[in-house]
Amino acid sequence: MTETLRSEKSGLPPGTLVHIGEEFGKATLVTIIDYNQEQFQETVVNNIEDTFPFRDTQTVSWINIDGLHDVAAIEKIGNHFGLHPLIQEDIVNTQQRPKTEDFGDYIFIILRMLSYDEPLGAVKNEQVSLILGKNFVLSFQEDVGDVWDNLRDRIRKNKGQVRKEGADYLAYSLMDAIVDNYFIILEKAGEDIEGIEEKLLLAPTRATLPAIYGLKREMLVLRKGVWPLREVVNALGHGENPLVKASTKIYLRDIYDHTIQVIDTIENYRDMISTLVDVYLSSVSNRLNEIMKVLTILSSIFIPLTFIVGVYGMNFQHMPELKMTWTYPALLAFMLVVALMMVGYFKRKKWF
Amino acid sequence: MTETLRSEKSGLPPGTLVHIGEEFGKATLVTIIDYNQEQFQETVVNNIEDTFPFRDTQTVSWINIDGLHDVAAIEKIGNHFGLHPLIQEDIVNTQQRPKTEDFGDYIFIILRMLSYDEPLGAVKNEQVSLILGKNFVLSFQEDVGDVWDNLRDRIRKNKGQVRKEGADYLAYSLMDAIVDNYFIILEKAGEDIEGIEEKLLLAPTRATLPAIYGLKREMLVLRKGVWPLREVVNALGHGENPLVKASTKIYLRDIYDHTIQVIDTIENYRDMISTLVDVYLSSVSNRLNEIMKVLTILSSIFIPLTFIVGVYGMNFQHMPELKMTWTYPALLAFMLVVALMMVGYFKRKKWF
Amino acid sequence: MTETLRSEKSGLPPGTLVHIGEEFGKATLVTIIDYNQEQFQETVVNNIEDTFPFRDTQTVSWINIDGLHDVAAIEKIGNHFGLHPLIQEDIVNTQQRPKTEDFGDYIFIILRMLSYDEPLGAVKNEQVSLILGKNFVLSFQEDVGDVWDNLRDRIRKNKGQVRKEGADYLAYSLMDAIVDNYFIILEKAGEDIEGIEEKLLLAPTRATLPAIYGLKREMLVLRKGVWPLREVVNALGHGENPLVKASTKIYLRDIYDHTIQVIDTIENYRDMISTLVDVYLSSVSNRLNEIMKVLTILSSIFIPLTFIVGVYGMNFQHMPELKMTWTYPALLAFMLVVALMMVGYFKRKKWF
Amino acid sequence: MTETLRSEKSGLPPGTLVHIGEEFGKATLVTIIDYNQEQFQETVVNNIEDTFPFRDTQTVSWINIDGLHDVAAIEKIGNHFGLHPLIQEDIVNTQQRPKTEDFGDYIFIILRMLSYDEPLGAVKNEQVSLILGKNFVLSFQEDVGDVWDNLRDRIRKNKGQVRKEGADYLAYSLMDAIVDNYFIILEKAGEDIEGIEEKLLLAPTRATLPAIYGLKREMLVLRKGVWPLREVVNALGHGENPLVKASTKIYLRDIYDHTIQVIDTIENYRDMISTLVDVYLSSVSNRLNEIMKVLTILSSIFIPLTFIVGVYGMNFQHMPELKMTWTYPALLAFMLVVALMMVGYFKRKKWF
Amino acid sequence: MTETLRSEKSGLPPGTLVHIGEEFGKATLVTIIDYNQEQFQETVVNNIEDTFPFRDTQTVSWINIDGLHDVAAIEKIGNHFGLHPLIQEDIVNTQQRPKTEDFGDYIFIILRMLSYDEPLGAVKNEQVSLILGKNFVLSFQEDVGDVWDNLRDRIRKNKGQVRKEGADYLAYSLMDAIVDNYFIILEKAGEDIEGIEEKLLLAPTRATLPAIYGLKREMLVLRKGVWPLREVVNALGHGENPLVKASTKIYLRDIYDHTIQVIDTIENYRDMISTLVDVYLSSVSNRLNEIMKVLTILSSIFIPLTFIVGVYGMNFQHMPELKMTWTYPALLAFMLVVALMMVGYFKRKKWF
Repeated sequence: MTETLRSEKSGLPPGTLVHIGEEFGKATLVTIIDYNQEQFQETVVNNIEDTFPFRDTQTVSWINIDGLHDVAAIEKIGNHFGLHPLIQEDIVNTQQRPKTEDFGDYIFIILRMLSYDEPLGAVKNEQVSLILGKNFVLSFQEDVGDVWDNLRDRIRKNKGQVRKEGADYLAYSLMDAIVDNYFIILEKAGEDIEGIEEKLLLAPTRATLPAIYGLKREMLVLRKGVWPLREVVNALGHGENPLVKASTKIYLRDIYDHTIQVIDTIENYRDMISTLVDVYLSSVSNRLNEIMKVLTILSSIFIPLTFIVGVYGMNFQHMPELKMTWTYPALLAFMLVVALMMVGYFKRKKWF
Repeated sequence: MTETLRSEKSGLPPGTLVHIGEEFGKATLVTIIDYNQEQFQETVVNNIEDTFPFRDTQTVSWINIDGLHDVAAIEKIGNHFGLHPLIQEDIVNTQQRPKTEDFGDYIFIILRMLSYDEPLGAVKNEQVSLILGKNFVLSFQEDVGDVWDNLRDRIRKNKGQVRKEGADYLAYSLMDAIVDNYFIILEKAGEDIEGIEEKLLLAPTRATLPAIYGLKREMLVLRKGVWPLREVVNALGHGENPLVKASTKIYLRDIYDHTIQVIDTIENYRDMISTLVDVYLSSVSNRLNEIMKVLTILSSIFIPLTFIVGVYGMNFQHMPELKMTWTYPALLAFMLVVALMMVGYFKRKKWF
Repeated sequence: MTETLRSEKSGLPPGTLVHIGEEFGKATLVTIIDYNQEQFQETVVNNIEDTFPFRDTQTVSWINIDGLHDVAAIEKIGNHFGLHPLIQEDIVNTQQRPKTEDFGDYIFIILRMLSYDEPLGAVKNEQVSLILGKNFVLSFQEDVGDVWDNLRDRIRKNKGQVRKEGADYLAYSLMDAIVDNYFIILEKAGEDIEGIEEKLLLAPTRATLPAIYGLKREMLVLRKGVWPLREVVNALGHGENPLVKASTKIYLRDIYDHTIQVIDTIENYRDMISTLVDVYLSSVSNRLNEIMKVLTILSSIFIPLTFIVGVYGMNFQHMPELKMTWTYPALLAFMLVVALMMVGYFKRKKWF
Repeated sequence: MTETLRSEKSGLPPGTLVHIGEEFGKATLVTIIDYNQEQFQETVVNNIEDTFPFRDTQTVSWINIDGLHDVAAIEKIGNHFGLHPLIQEDIVNTQQRPKTEDFGDYIFIILRMLSYDEPLGAVKNEQVSLILGKNFVLSFQEDVGDVWDNLRDRIRKNKGQVRKEGADYLAYSLMDAIVDNYFIILEKAGEDIEGIEEKLLLAPTRATLPAIYGLKREMLVLRKGVWPLREVVNALGHGENPLVKASTKIYLRDIYDHTIQVIDTIENYRDMISTLVDVYLSSVSNRLNEIMKVLTILSSIFIPLTFIVGVYGMNFQHMPELKMTWTYPALLAFMLVVALMMVGYFKRKKWF
Repeated sequence: MTETLRSEKSGLPPGTLVHIGEEFGKATLVTIIDYNQEQFQETVVNNIEDTFPFRDTQTVSWINIDGLHDVAAIEKIGNHFGLHPLIQEDIVNTQQRPKTEDFGDYIFIILRMLSYDEPLGAVKNEQVSLILGKNFVLSFQEDVGDVWDNLRDRIRKNKGQVRKEGADYLAYSLMDAIVDNYFIILEKAGEDIEGIEEKLLLAPTRATLPAIYGLKREMLVLRKGVWPLREVVNALGHGENPLVKASTKIYLRDIYDHTIQVIDTIENYRDMISTLVDVYLSSVSNRLNEIMKVLTILSSIFIPLTFIVGVYGMNFQHMPELKMTWTYPALLAFMLVVALMMVGYFKRKKWF
């Protein structure tokens, strides 16, 4: 798995296709789902050229491309479907923020598909580009594996609205599935926050701060991916392009609401995380206080006593106390009293 | 009481009704209050179908549904009253933020009903959905029990304006009661802040920080529920839909003012709470200082003295001082002077 | 002095007059000042009904009501002067934020009158409601005593513009006096900040933080009262209602400038206060450092020496040093050298 | 040098001229510079009335008044040049924020003239009011001495554009000189920040925090004076008043750019200063750590050893070790090993 | 390398050309690249006058000037190409923020060219001014060396679009190369952040904070240079000047996206850096805790023991324990038990 950095592209002419991002080491996979209310067809194509006829069918065609490192293939399909060179460039440069652009005969949408990668224990952040044209939707992903399996199933089994509607509803459904998945990430993060919180109040360790710090970064990633989505969905829902029908716009408003909800939750989480840092720091301070208390209590009791016994360890010849029989037990008793007074003083100060 | 998470809905087709939130384990309860200036009728219906005739009466009908887990019932009533599938979905998904949508022949409003749950010692945060139609208002709540008992009483006894006005005034009254209740929550929070403040200045304990932290979260919840309300009330008060009469809009402006007032107070509380954290941290530091002072004073007095007595505890054969009679009392006196000088030094430094 | 909380009103029908706020235990006091350029008349009325004729005089009538707990009187005068029930409600609910509403034949204005209460040592925060009508101004205050004595004097003695102008100029003058008084509060706060600052750098005590905290809260109160005023004055200065003449609008712009100035100063003070907290915390840390230095210097000098004298306090039979004559003074000299080296080390480290 | 506070004006009728601010104890100084492309004349006038004829000359007249405490003179000239009473009030109240007002036949501009007062070591913050009329500019300053000497020179010697242009260009030149001077203040502040930064990393002292705090306040003053300037210059540059010619507006855009640049720098400085506080606090913490390390190292080495020698200082009759010849040197060697192990432990922990 | 400060220009008439910034000590270098789709010509000119004929050629002429201290040359070329004096002033004053101004027959653009200077280990921040006219582009840089070598190559070898398009596309390409380079700076900063982060969690040193502080300043510089760029690109992309063709505007939108992406990343980095400061401070606190633990553990074990041995070091004649045979080993055993209990206590408290 190698990663191409953004900087390696610097200086190339605009419109040059360079794949920027991780290369997942698999061949590009192209699948086509073509349907209308009556018929349904699902194919895996080997040649990128096999997708070309689907541009002009009357049925809705969803062409999904997994893997972006084969820029030649992207360029071919891009040129056939009439995509502007800059759009092709955006598709393979996987560090885009969500955006949409309306080119009249097609609408270009970039989204971030976030999914929790169980084995990795981290959030996987993939770029998804959608092209909504007349009767077709192109979707480009960085890697095989996505959040659309339920949707595919609904198309296959003709459940829900999707087979009755056009390409715009398909594009909406793709976006909806992506936004729906954000809630899963957020619930996971919410659990993590609660877990850390509990630990913090019981027994914070050195590992707690890096964990908080990790959550903070995760929220930054999420936020970067979701904030601009708001504008994107808004632009789509209020655009004038006839490719998006009025009935679909109501559904886009629904995504808009979800996006706002996600943003709200992210901001709240960020707020709570920064409180966690405060709590952590104060727990460290409290710990220091406790350590100091132990030291101070023990020192305060024994340092004066050690002085006293030191006095009677001196070798002066003329120390009359040393010769009396009762002075030793009396001194022991006196020291006990001193020690108890100290303990009493600390008790009163509520030190233990 | 089981809770359905938002994530469990992920992947389902839009418009699928899935109840998201806690299930309070009670049957759905449907009550109808039907009135105009002259007549009044209050019924608990057993069959959701019994509510259907009230859609078309000339009297104002308030149909209140407690409990959202019976999605089939919600769907039935929703379909009969002509609600868009997405609206039905929003009603049963109880994690919505306040919003309003105007569908022409009805207006959809989502609010958060906050109430202080005395036995639980926590704020109960319920979702309320209102449908304002021509001559009817539907209200959907998560659980039995609400803040509208006073309003019901006013309708029953024909007190105030409500029996003289239409469905829009009823919807306003429902919203007004909800917003009014926010002040109770805020006053409770204000008292909590003052309580913590007092404790902080007298005797902060380990439990203080979690308490502050809890207040902070409560404010986040409140804020999340109230901020968007501002836009909602504004949209209703300036909308063009004839369902809301001009005379009612004046009342909506009043709710708007209250909402702003609530937001103002929340922001002030948040500000004060973050100050409390500072005060807490500084009180922890002060405590450490005090502990260190005790240790330092005691150590500073006794460590030099212990050294001195150690000197005369040495076993050198040629220590002339040891043989003189007056050296022992003189040393004791000298040590007293040293100790007093130390005490004087700390007094001058205002350490005690 | 009893206080009615906002929550006690919750659930009552809108437009119900309930006095919310402190009750100052005095009877409601109604005074009327009626004037034009030629004539002047000042009366204290006993019956609220005595104010009624002044609604329709051609002279400018200023009817001032002190005390809001007698809601029946407020209702009577409100109804006679044609005030909307919600306005009457706002007048007696003394927790409003500044706002203005234009009802066509009268303009309603709410302000906060802040004054420094010398004996109490705190800022008194009263609500003032103004009704500007054709040829009359109603002013409602919570308590006897206000910032308008100079203005009354100017009217009595026909100084300045006020007798030459109409009711709008009177309303402006009332607002101007209130805003002018904010500067007094701010100057007082500025002195407090400087006082704390000086103390902080010289000798911070435990009482310093609560004092800073108190200032912070005072600023929050001020801010809450002044921020919305900006919009209020702006709305009045740019309104279309002929009750406010163009010549008076120039004066309103002047108040607007003053308001901005007050807001600016508040924000600066807030900034400075939060710096004070930092300075306080760092002074606490510095103090800890100083305490630790004393402890460390003393311990570092005497702990090694105590060890040395301990060595020669051992009772081994074969310690040749103990028998030599010069070893005791040599050891004393050696210990002096060790002590001086320690002192030199700390001097070089600039510890004292 | 006495200062009149804003509060002393409270209660006076609007439009009353009261000088608010410091009184610099000098007589009011009035100078007139009158010029066109061909001729030039510079006069110091003794009577304020001597300025009156310049209102109507065809040449450009710059009337500069130094000192605002003589309110009678200000009133005379104000009335002759037709200034609104509120404008006259603003001129003598020296606590205004920058603003501009367009009265049709003249434009009123308030600016803050900031200059670094070398002997005082502080920023001098003077209010400057400009009146731009047809063929004349009035400028009012608090004190003698300003930033316009270069400009005067350019007028005298007919350098640059100024003699070729009208009064609007003169007003622009006055503003430009003031804004130019902000850069000097900023460069001085930039040096101060760098100086403190260096000190912080080398040897922070108790005086460092007050110095940082002073810089912070200076930035607040600057910010208060410059932020509103942006709107002022923008309003002038986009105003419709023919007193400002289109060609001058290009120059005003230039001042606008400079203002933005100043604001940018101020915000960056504020950011850097708040970082300095963090660095200072952390350096205080580091110092504490260092002190504690010294204490801990010394204590850790000698406390166990002191215990060991204490053991052999006990007076038990049956301690066989005491009688053997080799035990004393063996014990000394053992203690050396213990001490070296301790030192090794701390070395490995990188404590020194 | 001498630097001229902004303050030295203060007081000069507007439009006076003074070079503000570092002088790199090299002669001004002027190069011309002139091309259309068929022909290409590249020249280094010695006389600034040699550039004059290129103003009116039909081919696209890119005149690049390196070095701004020769203000006479700048003035000559500026006057010949018809640049407003204020523009000429802006070109040589190298402390401008990005901006654009449309003068009808030419468009003026200021950008910051940031490049990582490997030997210096710092970001080099140069000002670049572009003049886009009909068929020509002037570019002014502070120093020799830029980020346009790839672009020059593309023009020479006729790669990409640039030879097929006009001067506006050339200007776009220049801007694009500059913005592309920001990503390199950001990637470098990202690596630095990760490096510091790793160090922080392993072994923070005194040098870590200055390093964090340096990154923070670097971000401030970047931010200052990039934030205003957003408006600049937006203004160009939506301007009405026919000098920028519609097809080029699509490319400008692309730069706009990149700029937003850069700003996003900067803001995220700033957020992460401020977290780093928290982590650093907490690691300092943790270190203190660890030091205190060592001290406390050792002191707590040995201080009581030292007291005990001190007791039996006393010289009382009547201490029966001293005479018994078994007391010495018993005492040693007892002290061992005490020590082990202490260790057990600390183990249970998880102190080590």
